[in-house]
Amino acid sequence: MLGLGVVGSAVAQAIQRRSCDSPHGSSPPLDLRGVLVRDTSRQRSVEVPAGVISTDPASILENDRISIIVEVMGGETPAFEYISAALRAGKHVVTANKEVLCKRGDELISLAAENNVRLYYEASVGGGIPILGTLSDDLLANKILSLRAIINGTTNYILTRMAREGTSFEDALSEAQALGYAEADPTSDLDGFDALYKISILTRLAFHSSAPVDAIYREGIRNIHAKDFRYAQELGYTIKLLAVAQRADGGLLLRVHPALVPLDVPMAGVNGALNVVEVEGDLVGPLWLQGRGAGAEPTASAVMGDLLRIARELHGSGAPVRYDGPGLHLLPMDEHECMYYLRVTAVDRAGVLAKIASVLGEAGISIRSVLQMDTDDERGVADLVIMTHSAREVNMQSAADRLRNLDVVAALDNLVRVETYSDVD
Amino acid sequence: MLGLGVVGSAVAQAIQRRSCDSPHGSSPPLDLRGVLVRDTSRQRSVEVPAGVISTDPASILENDRISIIVEVMGGETPAFEYISAALRAGKHVVTANKEVLCKRGDELISLAAENNVRLYYEASVGGGIPILGTLSDDLLANKILSLRAIINGTTNYILTRMAREGTSFEDALSEAQALGYAEADPTSDLDGFDALYKISILTRLAFHSSAPVDAIYREGIRNIHAKDFRYAQELGYTIKLLAVAQRADGGLLLRVHPALVPLDVPMAGVNGALNVVEVEGDLVGPLWLQGRGAGAEPTASAVMGDLLRIARELHGSGAPVRYDGPGLHLLPMDEHECMYYLRVTAVDRAGVLAKIASVLGEAGISIRSVLQMDTDDERGVADLVIMTHSAREVNMQSAADRLRNLDVVAALDNLVRVETYSDVD
Repeated sequence: MLGLGVVGSAVAQAIQRRSCDSPHGSSPPLDLRGVLVRDTSRQRSVEVPAGVISTDPASILENDRISIIVEVMGGETPAFEYISAALRAGKHVVTANKEVLCKRGDELISLAAENNVRLYYEASVGGGIPILGTLSDDLLANKILSLRAIINGTTNYILTRMAREGTSFEDALSEAQALGYAEADPTSDLDGFDALYKISILTRLAFHSSAPVDAIYREGIRNIHAKDFRYAQELGYTIKLLAVAQRADGGLLLRVHPALVPLDVPMAGVNGALNVVEVEGDLVGPLWLQGRGAGAEPTASAVMGDLLRIARELHGSGAPVRYDGPGLHLLPMDEHECMYYLRVTAVDRAGVLAKIASVLGEAGISIRSVLQMDTDDERGVADLVIMTHSAREVNMQSAADRLRNLDVVAALDNLVRVETYSDVD
Repeated sequence: MLGLGVVGSAVAQAIQRRSCDSPHGSSPPLDLRGVLVRDTSRQRSVEVPAGVISTDPASILENDRISIIVEVMGGETPAFEYISAALRAGKHVVTANKEVLCKRGDELISLAAENNVRLYYEASVGGGIPILGTLSDDLLANKILSLRAIINGTTNYILTRMAREGTSFEDALSEAQALGYAEADPTSDLDGFDALYKISILTRLAFHSSAPVDAIYREGIRNIHAKDFRYAQELGYTIKLLAVAQRADGGLLLRVHPALVPLDVPMAGVNGALNVVEVEGDLVGPLWLQGRGAGAEPTASAVMGDLLRIARELHGSGAPVRYDGPGLHLLPMDEHECMYYLRVTAVDRAGVLAKIASVLGEAGISIRSVLQMDTDDERGVADLVIMTHSAREVNMQSAADRLRNLDVVAALDNLVRVETYSDVD
């Protein structure tokens, strides 16, 4: 491994966890045999065996016992030189480095092919979102019509704060820096370079086209003011930094810039540090991949995916890890727990709710709200809609049986579970 | 290929298109050597060479010149027997068949491993959404915490119609049948079997756990009434048919049932025939894959992805198709066309708008709306917010230059492009 920063540490941790706690016999072993750092004395969040850490690139790049290099240093130089040396030495390379893949990717990809080794870089775009594999494998039979993405978490966090709270650009940036969403020097994010590197990488895979930095229109978010959000909202829009590659007459147009996005399209709802890539293919139609686009663990997830793909090939099995055992214990529905929506046709007279509440209460289920809805005066009945607090399925089913037999209940028309969602972004 | 219905025809078409129109030299050739049908005389939407079509399974399954079988017949029998025979004969298999993969998947996966051949079935879940590859490759280092999905297009279409237009279940079903979204016998969709097959397949890959049909709670949508949507809406919810696999104390709980979904979570906005799978992994966090979950072409997209993956391996290169040429012509930003948002600090007096409109008009740009926003009485200026109709970038930039020099314009504060979205669902 080259680099042991936040991403590198998360990858090292995932490798170690895997070797102690491998759930399936058929998964290939991974062994961390060398880590290049600048300073061996620095305190790390992950424990790496002492003999493994080194400041000498040759000790890793020329080590015959190492067959896969993971590059998580970032930047064009010296990453380009290290990756090239590794590929020439017949080592497979996994990298999270968008800048080097954008600027020098054509060369590196050719070099990997010449040396018959793999160069995988899923982590370079969209963190743990599997967009590169999707473009290069799953959608291979499609003619890609367009890619449209929110692909830089820092700017999306800042723009979301500005949109929601009317924060100024400067305050939103300071907050992002305090939370670790923005770097001390935020130029690459704010001025759209990061998004540009990523759309260039996506373009190479989606359109089999080289997209050099200076062929892509780029505009950052520094000129967006709090009042632009207020005015845009008035017109039915919000503002997002988009990275777009679209087929047009005669070719392909590539652009990174802030854009007004209609409030009623899904992209307007991709907030905070989330990323999304929308691909339109002629067969698949519109495909939407969304997730955490940055951060140590999502990026480590993608690095590990690439690593295990190569490891599997080295072990002679390109096939996915096979199913080998019954696995987890399957729980009965009785153990499910949620809120419930009950629709009851009840006799329309006083005391009905007390009887229903008492049946529910005896089963340990408390009521969250009751609505009396449509009434049928002829039959003397009314729809009662009851929302319960969270309850266990087994209790709800026994209460439901008793409700059905209650004299004041003409029918328990429906019992629908309420799905619980935790807050995202 | 076994079967030549709507999916089979779309796959045959994609194979043929590929061989005439292959964009990159390094992509492996595919050759359609046999198609099993029930009736050779039937009229087809795709032209297949006469000698290729047959009603005799042995002519395909025992043909030494065929190395990959694509099964697109559906159903458990005789698909199970055919796939087994193919695997035993050392042929790789690609299938879109969720029922056989749910019910007999454990056996088939073992059989493929024993015979050292591939069994791929990306198309069996979520049409062209690459969810199986994501679970079995990209997220391999993650501990999966939950899967939550809208995974049956027919019921989602029906529920969306009921939610939006207050349509009755029966009418929405008839409509879905008329549009080809629901089959003549809609039992498998309406009663949740289709979603159950799919969550079972996902569970095997995500949790390395076998999930037999009778271990999964299943409830369909027949009991959902138009008034349930009305009442749910009153409470802040809509209703979706969900398929869920969630870790809980002591194991895994699997369930397919209609559920109240809060209107403010993204899943409430997945409408029409769209599918979505939300995966929560310990490293990647929440990951969201959305697209067309059914239909001939999205399904063919997934079948072709699997086919090409195998074909690549057979040709000795597991690597993604390499970049080999400059590709498409890259267009300059000048050729971009969109609506524009202009924020102008203008002198607050009569005739200003006429001057601005005339500059825009001379560049061929017409105004869609103008808002006069904040005014600064001290400086005698006001914010004008102008939305234009669609215009070319080159025209807008030249107009912007002229606006900046206009005496009534104190500043052209911002010029932001408006992104165009076509209607989905």
